[in-house]
This record gives sequence, structure tokens and C-alpha cells, in this order.
Amino acid sequence: MPQIDSGRLLKDLYELRAIGAYRTGVHRPALSPEDIQSRRWLVEKMSAAGLRAEIDGIANVFGWSAAPGRKLLLGSHLETQPHSGWLDGAMGVIYGLETARVLGGGIDVAAWFDEEGWFGSFLGSRSFCGQVADAEIGAARRRGDGVPLTEALAAAGLAGRPRVQAEPGRHIGFLEAHIEQGAELELAGDRIGIVTAIVGSRRFRIVFEGAQNHAGTTRMARRKDAGVALTRLAGAIEDRFPSIAHERTVWTTGSISLDPGSPSIVPGRAEMVFQFRDTEPAILEALDAELATLIAAANLGPCAVTAIRTGTTAPAAMDPGFQAAIAASAARHAPGKFQHMPSGAGHDAQILSGIMSAGMMFVPSIGGISHHYSEDTSDGDLVLGCQVFVDAAAALLS
Amino acid sequence: MPQIDSGRLLKDLYELRAIGAYRTGVHRPALSPEDIQSRRWLVEKMSAAGLRAEIDGIANVFGWSAAPGRKLLLGSHLETQPHSGWLDGAMGVIYGLETARVLGGGIDVAAWFDEEGWFGSFLGSRSFCGQVADAEIGAARRRGDGVPLTEALAAAGLAGRPRVQAEPGRHIGFLEAHIEQGAELELAGDRIGIVTAIVGSRRFRIVFEGAQNHAGTTRMARRKDAGVALTRLAGAIEDRFPSIAHERTVWTTGSISLDPGSPSIVPGRAEMVFQFRDTEPAILEALDAELATLIAAANLGPCAVTAIRTGTTAPAAMDPGFQAAIAASAARHAPGKFQHMPSGAGHDAQILSGIMSAGMMFVPSIGGISHHYSEDTSDGDLVLGCQVFVDAAAALLS
Repeated sequence: MPQIDSGRLLKDLYELRAIGAYRTGVHRPALSPEDIQSRRWLVEKMSAAGLRAEIDGIANVFGWSAAPGRKLLLGSHLETQPHSGWLDGAMGVIYGLETARVLGGGIDVAAWFDEEGWFGSFLGSRSFCGQVADAEIGAARRRGDGVPLTEALAAAGLAGRPRVQAEPGRHIGFLEAHIEQGAELELAGDRIGIVTAIVGSRRFRIVFEGAQNHAGTTRMARRKDAGVALTRLAGAIEDRFPSIAHERTVWTTGSISLDPGSPSIVPGRAEMVFQFRDTEPAILEALDAELATLIAAANLGPCAVTAIRTGTTAPAAMDPGFQAAIAASAARHAPGKFQHMPSGAGHDAQILSGIMSAGMMFVPSIGGISHHYSEDTSDGDLVLGCQVFVDAAAALLS
Repeated sequence: MPQIDSGRLLKDLYELRAIGAYRTGVHRPALSPEDIQSRRWLVEKMSAAGLRAEIDGIANVFGWSAAPGRKLLLGSHLETQPHSGWLDGAMGVIYGLETARVLGGGIDVAAWFDEEGWFGSFLGSRSFCGQVADAEIGAARRRGDGVPLTEALAAAGLAGRPRVQAEPGRHIGFLEAHIEQGAELELAGDRIGIVTAIVGSRRFRIVFEGAQNHAGTTRMARRKDAGVALTRLAGAIEDRFPSIAHERTVWTTGSISLDPGSPSIVPGRAEMVFQFRDTEPAILEALDAELATLIAAANLGPCAVTAIRTGTTAPAAMDPGFQAAIAASAARHAPGKFQHMPSGAGHDAQILSGIMSAGMMFVPSIGGISHHYSEDTSDGDLVLGCQVFVDAAAALLS
């Protein structure tokens, strides 16, 4: 059975952690100097591992195997959320690199550009799957500083390079390792998660329009308070959604704003950003219908309430064969210490699953913390996870 | 019966409207160049009206009568809210000036500094009433640009001037005219409002502390969502307050913020700015107790909820004799077209009522609009209101 080199694995992870280090985590916005440095670092590592390495026209990093026959594609992403964790994305890339070294052929490795959504939604993996037109790239700007993607790519020396697309028939499928970003494994005392499906989501901006007025002189009975309409709808969602939701369904109001937001002015306008997620299309449909019902009811009040759909992603089931391969490997290395589970977060594997078989494996996140610099996983779990991953990859290749 | 000069009244109002004009309204932040210009303009007008005019060390403008005997003090304020109305404050000052001209003696006129709260709370009238220490002035900064009050006063050439305080025994009392800033008069077809009391208010910042988490991977049952705690409390307030409130009690959540305010992050912290107002101390007490009960109940949930009291003003009853004088004058000039009513907004008269008899008179606001540049009152109502005001002042003086 092929054995990983745990010292080499951890050394790679620590080298990568040093590029854009922030406290115990990392700050590598997509196409920041640190992000570009991490991509060049990976090219060197891939070349040293015997892969033909390249960065394509959308900053995806690839390491191609020269071995004959069909290949297994492995990987994740390099850029991070702001001041975020050192393993989110990076771990899956380095697991792919270590697997290529250990198995010695048949492994392609990818670091997908911008899984974290600085410039758009899954631009790197969607480009590889043929879902990104040049116009989308031309229009994309980085959140925060508004830098155009085309300028950022040119500054990285990538202007004019072709974007690599999937070569039909080359790959058996795509396998991605990632930190769990939740506390399910830790709470159960498990060390490996086998992802059954990646949740789909529906995202909305809900706008409330009332009438701005003086908060001292306008009687309650005559108000059209957009803020009250908002808190009433938010409350109704919390009341109604549990009766439709499954155990793992989640819904979140991430931001609220009242306009003009002054202590002594009745808000004339309000907005909330709302989303829900589940692995079952039927649940998503039922929640969507319930939200529409609640918004229709809200419109019977004094304010006009409109839900604007800002995004939809479909749930992505992971390939049963890939799940079985991970489970068999986990049973060997961590008997009784693994579980099947959905992924509540989005990942490049959900994009790849549209054109090839796909699978995902999780390792525990300490305290379930994610998207924060204190995100962490024990060295023991990192090493065990990589060994499980390599054996699963070997089984899928054979 | 003394007659006002309606052409002179409207000409004064239109000249003042031109200083800092913004669309159909005015933008005169306290101690802005336009605000200083308006104070100097008023000094000239007062002097021309035979008053001894001065601007004191906190930018209050006074016009003193040289006539023997006790005086009636009239006035309001000159600065405005941002991009706000042309009559809010200005009308009451010009009514005072016109009254001094028409009655020819026994009238003092004041334009109180910063009723609109750019640097603090009723600084000008509170200074006149002996309620402002030098330390408060030293610490005050203008909202928005943070300019220290002491610097702004020095730039206006007022550094080192004494602050004028009320001279015991000089005044019969204080009478203020103001636009209603609500729609009660218009809705009833009335032209004059006689203020019975100015509401008191209690103001709070309510803070919710939970746990920030990933919105995809954190199960609902394990969340400590500060935003949900906030919307639940806001809903409970809307459910409970009506059973305690009187017809004119008002309560308002003016702003809400969720932290970090990102679509895919469970808010770990949230804040709301909340206030309520009434003319009855007992109602204010009962609402205060109810809020405390609701916050105690909210603390049984997964988040910590704390209410920080940021301000309290006591209700101020208007003098019955002053009310009777306005009512008698209104009955003469607008028979059947006046009503007694509380003021839902705060005014300098509530400060002056602490040291002398005080009264307030309202004229209608078109559409009830206030604190917006489209605020307006018909010329007919402006002229009628001034005549009612002058006759009431004459009756109080005699």
C-alpha cells in the first residue's frame, strides 16, 4: 500500500502558510501579490513532482501527468477569504500534490482560481468546465477594491494566455479534499467525512418600501415603517421554515439595513440579504414557495415588499463509486471514525460534478471554526486524511 | 388690535431661505458658513427693529428690548438638519422678530444655538438656563466632520465671548412658534395647534452577542445568531408595546446593523437603536419596564442581550395660561380651526420650561413632511399663524 511522506506533507503546508501569513492564518485575496506568489510556488512544486505545470489564462494552476491512460483529477484552491484560515483550499491542493508524488503517475492536480468569490462565482472551475464567456471575465471586478479581473490577470503576467478547458475522456473524475468548516466530525469524534452531496442554495435581496417620517410626530397608526415590515418578515421566516426544513437545512439573514438609519427617523426603506441551503431540490422548492407566501402576506401590510433573487446553485450529488472508495479507505485507516455527510458549503467539486464523476472528503475543523484566521486542524488529522485520500485515489485509478 | 405686516414677514422668511438654499429647502449645519451668515443677518434685522442685538459665546443670537417692565421672550432656532426644510426653526425666529416690531416693546427675541443637535443636545437653550458647563463645550464635536465646538466658535469670531444666562425676574415666560412636523392639523383641517406638552423620550442602543459562524456548515440548532435574536426582540416590542401605549405614544427602531454583515456568515453580533416617546411619565415608566422584561426574556435564548440607555428627556407640560392665550387668539382669527395637541418632537421650549412659564404654537406642515427639503407651509397659514402669535403675545404681555 502506497505510503505518504507525512514530513513532506506538513512541510509543504507550512511553506504555503507563510505566503501571506496573518496571525495564525493567511490573507491571500485572489490575484493579490501573495496569491500570485503562492501559484508560482505551486508550479515549482508540481514540476519537482514530475508534473507538467502551467498557469492558464484565468490563473488556474495545473500539473499534468505524462503517464498513459485515463487520469484522476485532484485539487482545490489557493486564495483565501480575508484574514482567514491556512487550510481552507490549500490542504486539498497539497493532498493532490502528495498523491501525485506517491502514486507516481495517473494523477493530474489543479488549483482552481477564485473559489472564494473575490471576482465572481467559481470562475476557475467554471472556466475549465466551459461555463465562462469572455464577457463575464471582462465585467468582473474584485470586491473591496474594484480592480478589474482583466487588469489583475495582466499584472500577474497572464494576459493573452488561453484558458484551459477539460479534455473530453481524459479524466475518470475529480476528487477534492477539504476541511469540514463545521463541527459535525469533532462532535461525533470522527476523523473523516465522506460527502454525499453539496448543498444547493437560493439567495435573495428583500426590499421593503414604506414612507420616511419623523419618529416623534408620526402616529403609529399612520406609519409605513419599512424596518418593522422587515423584522416582521424575518420573524415569520423563523416561525415557518422549521416546519418545512430537514435536520440539516439552513437559512440565514446575513445583513440588514434601514434607510436613512437615523435614531429619530421612521425608516422609509429597508433591505435584508437572505439565503437558504439544502441538498434536496424538493426542500429548496418548498422553502422557495413558503418565502413567496410570506412575502405575499407581508404585502398586505403598509409597506411594499419585493424579493429579488440574486443567486441559485443546484445541489450536487457526489458519485456513489467515489463515496465507496473513500469509505473503504477510511474503514481501513480510521475504523468506526468516519461518517457520510452533506457539505453545507459550496466547493469546486459541485462545478466539476457537472461534467465528470466527483467526490469530496472532509477532515475535522477544530471547534468547527472556518473563514477566520484561527481555523485549524490537528497534524494527526492532516496526516491521516492524506493517507485516506491517497488510498481512495489509488483505488479509483486501478 | 396690532396688525402684522404680512409682506415684511414673508420677505424676511424668503431672505433667510436664500442663505444655504438647497433645492426648495435649506442646508445650514450649526456654525457652517451659511449658519454664521444667517446669525449675522438676524443681528442686522433685530437692530433695525430697535432691539439691542448680540451673539453670545455659544452662538445664541439675542435681541433685547429696552422697554421697562417684564418682557416676553420669543424665538426658536436658525440652523437646520442636513438638506432640510426652510421653516423648521426659522419661522419661530421670524415670528418673534415680527412680534417685536408690531408690539414695539416688551419683546425679547432669541435664536437658540443648535436645537438640531449637531454638537450636542439643546446646547444653546440649556446654556441660557445654566445647564451647560465649560467641560461639555470643550468635549463637543460636530457630527459628520468631527470639528470641535471650540474651534467652530473661534472660527466664527466668538471665542472668549461670555455665554448669556437668563436674568432672574426679567421674563414673563417663553413662547415659541414652530411648524407642526406632523399631519394632525392638516388631517383635521385645522390651522393652529396649541401644544399641551412636549413628549419625553427614552433612547437605547441594544446589543446582541452570539457566535459568528459559516452560514452553510452550522446547523440551525447549534447557532447563536445575533441577528435572529434582534429580529425576535424587535417583533416582541411590536407585539407588546401597543397594549401599554396611549393613542399618541410612539416607538421607533431607527437603525439595525449585523456584524460582519456578510451574506454567508451567521451574524455574531448585532445592534439596534431604539427609542420611545410620550407626554406621560407613567407611560414612559411602563414602557421602560416592559422593555426590561422583553430583554430578560431574550436573554433566555442563545445570545446575550444588553440595553444601553443613551438618552432620556422628561416630558415638559406647557403653561396653562400660555395655552389659554394662544387658544383665545386662535378662536378670534381661526374659529373652529384649532386644536390642543402634544408635540411629538423636542423643542427649546421644553428646556426653557424648566426655568420659566413656556408655551408653543404650531402651524400646519403640508403633507406632514419634516426634516426634508420638501417641507413646506402655505403662505396663508404662515401669515395667519403670525397674527395669532402676535395677539397671544400681546395678551400675555398685558
